[in-house]
Amino acid sequence: MRVCGIDCGTETTGYGVVEWDDSAPNPELTWLAAGGISPPKKTALPQRLAFIYSALTTLLEKYRPDVVAVEEVFYSVNAKSAIKLGHVRGVALLAAATAGLRVAEYAPLTIKSTVTGYGLAAKEQVQFMVARLLRLASAPEPADAADALAIAICHVHHAQTLAIQEAHSV
Amino acid sequence: MRVCGIDCGTETTGYGVVEWDDSAPNPELTWLAAGGISPPKKTALPQRLAFIYSALTTLLEKYRPDVVAVEEVFYSVNAKSAIKLGHVRGVALLAAATAGLRVAEYAPLTIKSTVTGYGLAAKEQVQFMVARLLRLASAPEPADAADALAIAICHVHHAQTLAIQEAHSV
Repeated sequence: MRVCGIDCGTETTGYGVVEWDDSAPNPELTWLAAGGISPPKKTALPQRLAFIYSALTTLLEKYRPDVVAVEEVFYSVNAKSAIKLGHVRGVALLAAATAGLRVAEYAPLTIKSTVTGYGLAAKEQVQFMVARLLRLASAPEPADAADALAIAICHVHHAQTLAIQEAHSV
Repeated sequence: MRVCGIDCGTETTGYGVVEWDDSAPNPELTWLAAGGISPPKKTALPQRLAFIYSALTTLLEKYRPDVVAVEEVFYSVNAKSAIKLGHVRGVALLAAATAGLRVAEYAPLTIKSTVTGYGLAAKEQVQFMVARLLRLASAPEPADAADALAIAICHVHHAQTLAIQEAHSV
């Protein structure tokens, strides 16, 4: 199973692609790609969105994941930040739909608790655990890339749990 | 000058294309197209966004406006509505950028005051004036289409004012 996590942001949108091979005797979680998409500063919003959309479309075409995983919207932020984030999220969901991919959403608490065992973990703990789980020497940069990998890992974990539950309920 | 107004909405996104021909002896504002884009209900958000994006792209290709005009974001709504609206707005701005079109933004107050002479005009007054200005027998349906036409008319008006000011300042 190949999952692309996307961490939407108005400055930088992080992405992270991981692969989970459970056909191997020792199933392994592998890192395929991670990074941040940062449109040039001082660019108008429509062009920023076009930059992000184009980068995500290229990414999804290149890695052909089975699923795109994103963070659920959280409503605690103010309306101004919410609508800005909404623009980027809209474009990310569109890129997934256009590529014909399924979208899975996870609450920030679920992502942190899956990766670190603690729902209110600090950003650094998430980065540390992402590096450990993917056997990386250091946390991926930028921080948005680590967040995106955390979202992707969260999906792998939940999809696995679901598969086990389904197998047991047969 | 040809302007496409877009009134972003999560249920229905209105559009309205108008043409202003100031080369004629009696400059005229003409209605070219108006309507509402409503993705099928019970569709997941990514597919709804893809539906809206595809419809807008087709529209912009067909009518080739010079400018796309949208409402400025208003922050008085709650964060949940704001982020929902942001998704659609992001996709609309992306459609404009991808078509290589300039985007103009107007505050709701400016739009209402341009079309009706009163910034706090009721929805019905806006619809009535849009029909009058475009010499239509009745207000365009759905209401979102009338709103989109109002945005487009607002741009025509402001672009004209700007042109006159520029001519005077030479």
